[in-house]
Amino acid sequence: TQLSHVDETGRARMVNVSDKPHQRRRAVATGVLLCQPATLRALRKNALPKGDVLTVAQIAGIHAAKRTADLIPLCHPLALTHVAVEFRVRRDRIEITCTAETTGPTGVEMEALTGVSVAALTLYDMCKAVDRTMRIDQIRLLEKTKA
Amino acid sequence: TQLSHVDETGRARMVNVSDKPHQRRRAVATGVLLCQPATLRALRKNALPKGDVLTVAQIAGIHAAKRTADLIPLCHPLALTHVAVEFRVRRDRIEITCTAETTGPTGVEMEALTGVSVAALTLYDMCKAVDRTMRIDQIRLLEKTKA
Amino acid sequence: TQLSHVDETGRARMVNVSDKPHQRRRAVATGVLLCQPATLRALRKNALPKGDVLTVAQIAGIHAAKRTADLIPLCHPLALTHVAVEFRVRRDRIEITCTAETTGPTGVEMEALTGVSVAALTLYDMCKAVDRTMRIDQIRLLEKTKA
Amino acid sequence: TQLSHVDETGRARMVNVSDKPHQRRRAVATGVLLCQPATLRALRKNALPKGDVLTVAQIAGIHAAKRTADLIPLCHPLALTHVAVEFRVRRDRIEITCTAETTGPTGVEMEALTGVSVAALTLYDMCKAVDRTMRIDQIRLLEKTKA
Amino acid sequence: TQLSHVDETGRARMVNVSDKPHQRRRAVATGVLLCQPATLRALRKNALPKGDVLTVAQIAGIHAAKRTADLIPLCHPLALTHVAVEFRVRRDRIEITCTAETTGPTGVEMEALTGVSVAALTLYDMCKAVDRTMRIDQIRLLEKTKA
Amino acid sequence: TQLSHVDETGRARMVNVSDKPHQRRRAVATGVLLCQPATLRALRKNALPKGDVLTVAQIAGIHAAKRTADLIPLCHPLALTHVAVEFRVRRDRIEITCTAETTGPTGVEMEALTGVSVAALTLYDMCKAVDRTMRIDQIRLLEKTKA
Repeated sequence: TQLSHVDETGRARMVNVSDKPHQRRRAVATGVLLCQPATLRALRKNALPKGDVLTVAQIAGIHAAKRTADLIPLCHPLALTHVAVEFRVRRDRIEITCTAETTGPTGVEMEALTGVSVAALTLYDMCKAVDRTMRIDQIRLLEKTKA
Repeated sequence: TQLSHVDETGRARMVNVSDKPHQRRRAVATGVLLCQPATLRALRKNALPKGDVLTVAQIAGIHAAKRTADLIPLCHPLALTHVAVEFRVRRDRIEITCTAETTGPTGVEMEALTGVSVAALTLYDMCKAVDRTMRIDQIRLLEKTKA
Repeated sequence: TQLSHVDETGRARMVNVSDKPHQRRRAVATGVLLCQPATLRALRKNALPKGDVLTVAQIAGIHAAKRTADLIPLCHPLALTHVAVEFRVRRDRIEITCTAETTGPTGVEMEALTGVSVAALTLYDMCKAVDRTMRIDQIRLLEKTKA
Repeated sequence: TQLSHVDETGRARMVNVSDKPHQRRRAVATGVLLCQPATLRALRKNALPKGDVLTVAQIAGIHAAKRTADLIPLCHPLALTHVAVEFRVRRDRIEITCTAETTGPTGVEMEALTGVSVAALTLYDMCKAVDRTMRIDQIRLLEKTKA
Repeated sequence: TQLSHVDETGRARMVNVSDKPHQRRRAVATGVLLCQPATLRALRKNALPKGDVLTVAQIAGIHAAKRTADLIPLCHPLALTHVAVEFRVRRDRIEITCTAETTGPTGVEMEALTGVSVAALTLYDMCKAVDRTMRIDQIRLLEKTKA
Repeated sequence: TQLSHVDETGRARMVNVSDKPHQRRRAVATGVLLCQPATLRALRKNALPKGDVLTVAQIAGIHAAKRTADLIPLCHPLALTHVAVEFRVRRDRIEITCTAETTGPTGVEMEALTGVSVAALTLYDMCKAVDRTMRIDQIRLLEKTKA
C-alpha cells in the first residue's frame, strides 16, 4: 500500500508524469443531490420548461472541470477535449453525471468528480431558499479508461 | 414555494441583495469521504505523522471557499473574514467540517459547502492510487446563523 | 481634459478611491450580436425551446461581470450585489443588456460593459459553426447612477 | 443548419474534439473603440509619449486571450503559442487587432475575439473619465487558417 | 512568541478577523532585480523610450496585488482601494516599490509584497533572454500604517 | 544584445513559439526567506512537529507555478508535468527550492521562479505576526535543461 502523493518521509508531493505516454483518457463520475419531492416539483413547474436551473448547473460543472488543476493542489494541468454534464430528475433527487476526456499523460477522474461536485453545489444554491434539507451524496467514479 | 433564483418566467437570475443589511453571518457544513480501512491505515502510517495529506486538503478547502463566487454562477462575491476546515479520521471515513464567516448582505452556506466539497475532492485525489472504492457523501449544511 | 488613469508624467495608474464615500451604484450597458437571420431561425428552432443558448450566455456574462477587476488591469475590485444579463432576439441580431449594482467607492460601468461583452462572445461561440458573418457591435453604457 | 453547441434535444453542449488532429491554427480578429476626437488628442498628448495606455490594453488583451476557456463556457482549453494585440489610433477611433496561434485540435477565433474585446474594454476604462460617448464596435473575425 | 497562523496543536489556520474594526490601511513594500549593467543599457535603449517593459511589469504587479488572497492560502480577501507599482532603474538594478491601500479588517502588507514580487518576476521574464545572472533580492516591508 | 520581449519599435510582445519543437524541459530555482533565529525556533517548536507551515507554503508554491502564465503577462501557457517545492530550515533563514518540468515548446524557468516566490510570500505571511524584519532574498535560477 503506497499513497502516490506522499513521499517516503511522509511529505505530500505532486506525482511526476514527465515520462508517461500521452494516451487518450476518459472518466465518468456520478453523484446525487437529495431534495424534498416538493422542491423538485417546484423545479419542474417553474424552471424545467426552460431548463434554466439545469443549464446553469451544467455550465458550472463544465467550467469547474476545466479548472480542476487550479482547485486540487496536486492535480496536473490538462487540456480537456470534452466535458459533458447530464442530469436526471427523479422523485426525490437529481442524479448528476460528468464525463471528461483528454489526450495526455494522466487520467481525468478528478476532472469528472469536480464537474459533478460543482454542478451539485450549483443546484443546491439555486434550490436552497425552498429546501433546507438537501444533501449532496454518493459522488464516485463510475468508469475510467485509456486507449 | 418559490425558487429564489428563478424569475416569474422561469429564467435563472441572481438574487438582488443591494437592499439587504450587512450582518455578521456564519455557516458550518460537513461531509465525509468513505474509504477502505486499509487506506486510512496507510494514511495514518505514512502521512499523519506530518499531517501533510490533511493539510493539503485543508488549504484546498479554504482556497475554494474564498473563491466560491467564481465557481457557483449565481453566488454573490463576499469577503470572508474566516474559514476553517477540520477533519476527523475514523475507521472507514474522514469527516470534514468547514466553517465560514463574513459580515455582509447574504449568507455563507455555499462557501462552507464548497470548502467541504473541495477538501473532500483533494483527499480523494491523494488516496486514489490505493483505493478505487472511495465515495464522497453526506455533504450538508449543519448550521447557519446571523447576528 | 484629463485622463484619470494617466499621471502627470504620462504613466498609467490606478485611481486612488480610498477617500471616496461608499454609495449605492448602478450601471446598465448594452450591445448587439449581428447575425444572419437564418442563424437566429436555427437558434429559435433548436435552442430557444429550452433557452439553453441564451442561458449559457447569461451565465457567462454574470460570471465575467463578477471578475471584471481580474480582467481590466486598473479596475478596482468590487463586491457586486446584483448582476442581470438579458437578451432580445430580433430578426438579424440579439440585443444584450447587462445591469450591475454595488455599494462601494466607485462605479460599476466596467462591470456592466464586461458582462455584455462576454455574453456576446459566448453567443458568438455557440453560433460560429453556422454563421461566419457575425459581428459584435454597439457596446456602450446606457445609464449610470448613484444614490 | 446545425448549431454545433446544441444537441438534438436543444441542450447546450461542448463539442467533443477528442478525435480531431492537432494542427497549427491561427486566427485574427479586429474591432474598434469609437471616441471623441478630443479624447484621442488627450491620449496622444498625455499618454502616447510613453505608450502606456496602449500597453496596458495590449497586456489586458493578451492576458484575456490566454484565459478564453475560463471565460467562454463551452470553449476548449488551448495552450496558445502566440498572441499579439496591436492598435492604430485614428482621428475618432482606435482600431484593435488580435492574432492568436496554437497547435491543437480546435481553432483559436474565440481567443482572438476575446483579446480584442478585453483590450477594447481596457481602453474604455482608461478614457471613460473624459468621454461618455465611447462605443465598442465592429468586433469580428478577419481571418482563420490551419496548416 | 506566538505564530498567528498556527493553532495550539501546531495546525495551520486562517486568523479570524470577524471582530476586527474596519480601518483605513496602507502598506509599502520594496525589492530589487539585480541585472548586468548591459541589460539595463539595452532596456534603456530599446524599451524605455516607450516605457513598455516597465509598464508591463507595473500592470502585472497591480494585477497580482489585487488577487493576493487567491495566491497566499491563509490571506483574507480584501477590496483594495489603491495599488501603485513604481520603478527606479539604477546602474545594475531596478528598484521596485508597491503601495497598497484598503479600508478593511486586516492589513495589506501581503498585497504590497505580492505586487513587488510579481513585478520583479515579470521584469525577469522580459530580460531573461539577454541576462542569465539576474537575481530578485531584498523584498521587504517598508511601511505599514492604519488610521 | 536583444531583448526577446521587445520588438524593433520598442513595444513589448509575446515571443512566438509556434515553430519551436516540443522538448522535455526542466528548471530549478531557489531563494531564501531571512528571519530572526527566534522566529525559526518558534516555527520548529509549534509548527514543525506537524510540518504544517512548510506544507502550506509548498502547496502555495505548486499552485502558483501551475498558474504562472496567468501571473506573468508575456509567459506562454504550459501544462507542467511536475512541480516540487522543498525547504531547508537553517538558523536564520529558510531556503526554498522549486523544480518544474514539462514537455513543450518553451522553458519553465519562470514557473520555477514563481513557485519559489509565492512559497516565500506564504512563509512570510505565516510568520509576520512574530517577525517584522523578514526579507525575501536571492531568488535566482539554479539550473535549466532540455532533452
